[in-house]
Amino acid sequence: MQVSLSEIKFDANGLVPAVVQDAETNEVLMMAYMNRESLQLTLEKGETYFWSRSREELWHKGATSGNVQRVVDIRVDCDADTLLVRVHPAGPACHTGNQTCFYRTMTTDGRP
Amino acid sequence: MQVSLSEIKFDANGLVPAVVQDAETNEVLMMAYMNRESLQLTLEKGETYFWSRSREELWHKGATSGNVQRVVDIRVDCDADTLLVRVHPAGPACHTGNQTCFYRTMTTDGRP
Repeated sequence: MQVSLSEIKFDANGLVPAVVQDAETNEVLMMAYMNRESLQLTLEKGETYFWSRSREELWHKGATSGNVQRVVDIRVDCDADTLLVRVHPAGPACHTGNQTCFYRTMTTDGRP
Repeated sequence: MQVSLSEIKFDANGLVPAVVQDAETNEVLMMAYMNRESLQLTLEKGETYFWSRSREELWHKGATSGNVQRVVDIRVDCDADTLLVRVHPAGPACHTGNQTCFYRTMTTDGRP
């Protein structure tokens, strides 16, 4: 089943969350937001583009670091309001130098 | 490195996005939102609880379907504003009966 750009449900701020997964290892690398323009660019260029909410600007992942993410495919959830972008990363996803942004674990001090 | 509940950055609505991944297959199953109470419950009970934005209520995943998600660990991203919940699912994550909510692919009609 295929979903077109026009079917994607952007939120009140015009954004859709995009989970980025390594297509080879299946490791989840990061989560960021796309607006329509960055999603269109991602489809056109075959590399990930996001909308930076803090800087309020388009953000081509890897433009400065070189750690671009080549897109393998983009999956869409049942509500069409979340994307799963499967990529081949040229380097670490995280600005800390870690391969994934999810390199920490929660303490389980909430457990009884 | 370990992160405690008090360090999690909930958004203006008191929510944090939670990506759910099958701990065995590494398949990404769904994305939903947790508030502090549902995250606390998830930690305490060892099964996933979310905040349903549409129904505006706590949601114990699998309470009616039986398809609970047993938590293996919870990873936290570099900004502490997104969770990656690794689980053993008792059944399909999606209300459509699909194993994952991400069972559709985007058309690449945006490509040149």
